[in-house]
Amino acid sequence: VGDQLLEALAAAVGAGHVLADDDRRARFEVDWTGRFRGRARAVVRPADAAEVAAVLAACRAHGAAVVPQGGNTGMVGASVPRGGEVVLSLARLRDLGAVDTAAAQVQAGAGVTLAEVQAQARAAGLDAGVDLGSRDSATVGGLAATDAGGTHAMRYGTVRARVAGVQAVLADGTIVDRPPLLKDNAGFDLSALLIGSEGTLAVITGVRWRLVPLLTSRVAALVPLPSLEDAAALLAAIRPRLATTLHAADFFLDEGLQLVLDHDGLPAPVRTRTPVYVLLECADRHDPTPDLAEALEDAGIADAVVADDSAERRRLWRFREGHAEAIAAAGIPHKLDVGVPLARLPEFAARARDEIARVAPGARPVIFGHLGDGNVHVNVLGPDPDDDAVDEAVLRLAAACGGTISAEHGVGVAKARWLSLTRPPGELRAMAQIKRALDPDGTLNPGAVFDPTAG
Amino acid sequence: VGDQLLEALAAAVGAGHVLADDDRRARFEVDWTGRFRGRARAVVRPADAAEVAAVLAACRAHGAAVVPQGGNTGMVGASVPRGGEVVLSLARLRDLGAVDTAAAQVQAGAGVTLAEVQAQARAAGLDAGVDLGSRDSATVGGLAATDAGGTHAMRYGTVRARVAGVQAVLADGTIVDRPPLLKDNAGFDLSALLIGSEGTLAVITGVRWRLVPLLTSRVAALVPLPSLEDAAALLAAIRPRLATTLHAADFFLDEGLQLVLDHDGLPAPVRTRTPVYVLLECADRHDPTPDLAEALEDAGIADAVVADDSAERRRLWRFREGHAEAIAAAGIPHKLDVGVPLARLPEFAARARDEIARVAPGARPVIFGHLGDGNVHVNVLGPDPDDDAVDEAVLRLAAACGGTISAEHGVGVAKARWLSLTRPPGELRAMAQIKRALDPDGTLNPGAVFDPTAG
Repeated sequence: VGDQLLEALAAAVGAGHVLADDDRRARFEVDWTGRFRGRARAVVRPADAAEVAAVLAACRAHGAAVVPQGGNTGMVGASVPRGGEVVLSLARLRDLGAVDTAAAQVQAGAGVTLAEVQAQARAAGLDAGVDLGSRDSATVGGLAATDAGGTHAMRYGTVRARVAGVQAVLADGTIVDRPPLLKDNAGFDLSALLIGSEGTLAVITGVRWRLVPLLTSRVAALVPLPSLEDAAALLAAIRPRLATTLHAADFFLDEGLQLVLDHDGLPAPVRTRTPVYVLLECADRHDPTPDLAEALEDAGIADAVVADDSAERRRLWRFREGHAEAIAAAGIPHKLDVGVPLARLPEFAARARDEIARVAPGARPVIFGHLGDGNVHVNVLGPDPDDDAVDEAVLRLAAACGGTISAEHGVGVAKARWLSLTRPPGELRAMAQIKRALDPDGTLNPGAVFDPTAG
Repeated sequence: VGDQLLEALAAAVGAGHVLADDDRRARFEVDWTGRFRGRARAVVRPADAAEVAAVLAACRAHGAAVVPQGGNTGMVGASVPRGGEVVLSLARLRDLGAVDTAAAQVQAGAGVTLAEVQAQARAAGLDAGVDLGSRDSATVGGLAATDAGGTHAMRYGTVRARVAGVQAVLADGTIVDRPPLLKDNAGFDLSALLIGSEGTLAVITGVRWRLVPLLTSRVAALVPLPSLEDAAALLAAIRPRLATTLHAADFFLDEGLQLVLDHDGLPAPVRTRTPVYVLLECADRHDPTPDLAEALEDAGIADAVVADDSAERRRLWRFREGHAEAIAAAGIPHKLDVGVPLARLPEFAARARDEIARVAPGARPVIFGHLGDGNVHVNVLGPDPDDDAVDEAVLRLAAACGGTISAEHGVGVAKARWLSLTRPPGELRAMAQIKRALDPDGTLNPGAVFDPTAG
């Protein structure tokens, strides 16, 4: 049976694009953090939507499950096999269209990286409106499949708000597509349903990206603060007056900063260590520095590090963006990406620390994230990758604080067991009904989003 | 049986909120244009989501169909009864929260009007990011249910991009809700599926609205042009250089302008009649007039009427926004809201005129719309409301031009027969599967979106 499947896959994409050997499969079988891994039956690399449809038909015919994979930068194990699936890599869907400046849109294949979309947009005087640390690896297909957020979501929304439409292949081989129009209300917006569905309802093969104006006058400020309460109060005070320019308001703590400084061999950004750092960035056509400086002064901030040239801005962002690598270098982390209302973020962080100490004594929490949308990354070093006691404790706490168990990373296999913490039974039932309606055989990404152990 | 239903509805919402008399039902039974009408079994006016759930339970128990109705400003007959349904009016869901300025969001009940959201946002230094002529009547529930577009969509997206989440009641009584967070990727985004589903999958009871910066420096320019080709070329030339300020680029033709001038008793905006008018508006923190003037000059435009104070801007917008009323005063129009790529808009308009003359000799077409997103409103006066030959001809042409049969009005009952023109069989099948999964008894808005005569 195995050989018949491989033959059918070879017929769909060409034998050279079916990777069945251990060596060639290996890099597709483990996630970026090293926490999630599994053996694939094979890795297939189709060239376009029609070949994706052919791969799905072959897998359905042979009862094989499919795990779609983009840049493999996901954090919840949704894009690596659990064991025995066919990994469907979108890496060869690399078409990137010319920017339509009259519509402010660009068409990108699923395998185009975010950095490539950004570069293409900027060359036309526009911008992608989404930015995140893995921009050189993350692909637009994966960004859409997880509804990625990143640092600029507070201004431009998540990827969902930046997509005019997706091209995708449903489990039955139907190719879903839309005309290149911003407004298209002809029937249900299947694109909108597929965004954030993590490969469980369809394989996204292309994205029509809505671009935003390119704002080249930028200023960043790193603000040292005594507490997260002060950080939340600062954002609440300055956001209304910087409404037209503020596009990022991230935060990290001394524990994370020290890890980054050690890992990168960097000097500290400020002379005196403080518990909390807020990293603000404004962008505008006109120099946003005076407005930012005045807002900080009125908020009683005297010791911010202000960076108005790009080298210095990059230096400040390195302290924040370096977290992921520095943590990975220290071990295999439990990465818990949650969201809580801003007003409860300080309480959440304090209680999360207590909970982690309680269920995993000696574990090392590293907390950072996006203050602008209440998105907290709780990374925990120490516990075994398979021990999910910290996961459960932190996710329960996020729900108890009126938040979500997944802000931007998605559910994947990492959090499927806990989806009921933030979604009532009726919503879970509706999701399961939609899944059954569109993928009755359960071909697409089984084990992701839905808890396979649930009744 | 009829009495039992009314008793159950009275138990759900209170007898005073079940309107069963002809007189009291009448205004809920006909749409704004007068083209769509039908008798309702009763009109019910629940006070909140729990009462909506009780109404749906009562209707399911008695086999009654439900037509949700917001401000009843829809153009496709989706919110008035076809005959015998219960009209579920959301008019009493009027809660409007305080603006959360740290999150730039506000919570609004389904029955709050767009104008009220705009006013609430502006009082907090923010704005709704959506604007359209029916702002004083259209409600947020209806705006979300139809994914309304309007004049500012080219900058801020359609309503879909402005919603952080909806509260809604599914056919089985499940209340779908989300925490007040921008980022929430815990499972499928049911909100996103419900937006634009026109009351066929759920009853939207509230919207968490994402606000945009309030930009008080505005300038409008009315540009007379010889042809739609010139209009499309103008937008393509100026949009890239006005990327950070342009928020509207509408168009109308001399035929529509004369109707408005006659109806409103207004003087013409320019001395010499020309075939085409483009109405541009820019908004920024800084005065956008010099940039707009320079862009127009470089595009060879010497005779634009530029308005930089609000009274004069309102005067110019009246020529565009007055179209709906002036057309309605002239008869019951066929309102066909389609979208085509900008480059094909002139060809579409010319061919639409030919098609209308062919299938309905003597009919009077009035064409206007939103140039910024290829959204063309084809209004046709003359043919009988029940004669849909012009509808079919125009919708077929939009599809043939690579466009959509509905840009912003939705499908409703008006276009259900022609959905297959722009959606392939596999997509229609997927939509029907989703409908069956979430509303197996067909309680919600039967006859809308899906063609009841299809096999």
